[in-house]
Amino acid sequence: MEVVQVLHMNGGVGETSYANNSFVQQKVITMTKPITEDAITKLYCSTYPEEIAIADLGCSSGPNTFFVVSELIKVVDSARRKISQKSPEYQVFLNDLPGNDFNTIFRSLSIFQNKLREQLGPGIGPCLFTGVPGSFYGRLFRKNSLHFVHSSYSLQWLSQVPQGLESNKGNIYMASTSPPNVLKAYYEQFQQDFSLFLKCRSEELVDGGRMVLTFLGRRTDDPSSKECCYIWELLAMALNDMVLEGVIEEEKLNSFKIPQYTPSPAEVKYEVEKEGSFSIDQLEVTEVNWNAYQNETDLSDAFKDGGYNVAKCMRAVAEPLLFSHFGEAIIDEVFRRYREIVADRMSKEKTEFVNVIVSLKKA
Amino acid sequence: MEVVQVLHMNGGVGETSYANNSFVQQKVITMTKPITEDAITKLYCSTYPEEIAIADLGCSSGPNTFFVVSELIKVVDSARRKISQKSPEYQVFLNDLPGNDFNTIFRSLSIFQNKLREQLGPGIGPCLFTGVPGSFYGRLFRKNSLHFVHSSYSLQWLSQVPQGLESNKGNIYMASTSPPNVLKAYYEQFQQDFSLFLKCRSEELVDGGRMVLTFLGRRTDDPSSKECCYIWELLAMALNDMVLEGVIEEEKLNSFKIPQYTPSPAEVKYEVEKEGSFSIDQLEVTEVNWNAYQNETDLSDAFKDGGYNVAKCMRAVAEPLLFSHFGEAIIDEVFRRYREIVADRMSKEKTEFVNVIVSLKKA
Repeated sequence: MEVVQVLHMNGGVGETSYANNSFVQQKVITMTKPITEDAITKLYCSTYPEEIAIADLGCSSGPNTFFVVSELIKVVDSARRKISQKSPEYQVFLNDLPGNDFNTIFRSLSIFQNKLREQLGPGIGPCLFTGVPGSFYGRLFRKNSLHFVHSSYSLQWLSQVPQGLESNKGNIYMASTSPPNVLKAYYEQFQQDFSLFLKCRSEELVDGGRMVLTFLGRRTDDPSSKECCYIWELLAMALNDMVLEGVIEEEKLNSFKIPQYTPSPAEVKYEVEKEGSFSIDQLEVTEVNWNAYQNETDLSDAFKDGGYNVAKCMRAVAEPLLFSHFGEAIIDEVFRRYREIVADRMSKEKTEFVNVIVSLKKA
Repeated sequence: MEVVQVLHMNGGVGETSYANNSFVQQKVITMTKPITEDAITKLYCSTYPEEIAIADLGCSSGPNTFFVVSELIKVVDSARRKISQKSPEYQVFLNDLPGNDFNTIFRSLSIFQNKLREQLGPGIGPCLFTGVPGSFYGRLFRKNSLHFVHSSYSLQWLSQVPQGLESNKGNIYMASTSPPNVLKAYYEQFQQDFSLFLKCRSEELVDGGRMVLTFLGRRTDDPSSKECCYIWELLAMALNDMVLEGVIEEEKLNSFKIPQYTPSPAEVKYEVEKEGSFSIDQLEVTEVNWNAYQNETDLSDAFKDGGYNVAKCMRAVAEPLLFSHFGEAIIDEVFRRYREIVADRMSKEKTEFVNVIVSLKKA
């Protein structure tokens, strides 16, 4: 079983893929399934289109890449069988950054397609697959060409590290000690990025088209709250320890910042309403334990080491960024220390990721 | 300078890309430029569409991958400037088999896009790029979604080795010694494949949409003519020599066949008319020397070794097939012998590839 997908990269999130942790990600996708199912069913049953174009933004290249798409196709297929409608044709766009491993996706495509045909029987229409490399903070698809957009655990990534974070010394992300201008810089970058995202997608979706977006987010209004920043604060601790020991230069650490923003449902709602192209059908918040395996009963003890699991999960996310900023030499040591710190905190506190899910319809 | 692109594969043309030899391929593309330019200009100037969807089938992953597309975009851009029309949006579909190296294409995309924007100036519309993995002997794109299809040096590849070639002993392709049933089996496979190709593309192209297809082909009616089969007969010679020396088993050689068919213009015309979806705008035949560098004056002597160049060129094409059938061990030796045989023949005879180019319009 592949626990996480470790990403290899050439330099930061800008050139690799939106990092997905297989197991946490799969849990979140399963959690949001009722919302996704509801949205795609409404889409299909509003006009019974002869073709459905689905885009998965931040598809990565692992077990989850085909998981979402196959779930969506199964829902549509079940709906069309109920009313004895002919299967639509499916056009699937798999999007991620150009550094994503599309070769692996493409080479496993025929296995996936055969499995899907087996599961759904001979009546299923053609499923045409396409890889779309590029940032979703820009146009990716033809105008009025998409019916459904899905994105899970990718939209918390910003298009870039915000400007003006010089005063955020010792931190690598927003933290309880961050000055107000740092929080403002992060928030403004989120606003700018998410608003551009909505504008681009509204050009690409047909009227009545739908999106289900899942962000790593937060419940509270405070963007420096522990519920979204703690996981990075602990990584900063490991890095700061290494500065104290002279392994990492202080200046090097001070120029390292995570290009992420974990929005609250209110912030998501505000941007959607301000941009104006979409109406909100559903907006929900859920949690998933840092150690996604915690409540799994049929797993070996190896998976119950929360510190190990979380460090491995976060390594998949953060390694590309650390690698390109600090080089390869420090990586193992950072995550050895991080694992210890995380394990200690998890034994003392409740530690959860917060997910903000929004289901949108193009007005 | 990269002379050829050696393909690595997991088993035959079915899992790798349609092999393109950079320099021969580029010469052929340049040769067919007037036909391609004429076709895309007619397409654009018939309706001045706001978006143009272009597919390159068998795009491979080398210097030629973006060459064709950039030429097409430049022609449209020049045409729209003449009449002060706003630039259309470009949707580019790059297709090849799932084994093609799409990662390399995607990772060089931004360099290409920046260069194109520099060359064409700020007025150029968005150029959206998409990778489409799969065989073009099947549906690849949405119905009525393409405006222009280009394919160069890929359509001579069949979807599979024809059935019933047992009597073609000692040969690896059609040859002067092939019995009539072998020629028939090859021709029927070509008919079936090309007819399916036309049917699929006619579903995917809009009315008035166009295709320019370049085959490695022949002038004569005789499918076992030297002008198309000789290059393979020489490879068969090298292999047969190795059978005589006990390096390769005779049975192993007898079961190795090249899944290719090099049609005549008459055969292409016949299939197009039989299938019925397209009208022929132009149909031409050109030649390119086996050693594409022969008439280049500004190259070093290294490029003037015809035997070396042709063997290297054919190695890029044939290595994946030989590798998957015979294993890695014999490859170097096969091409060492082949190079000698080719050099000898080139010094005594005129040796050319024949290209059949057809420009089609969806009726």
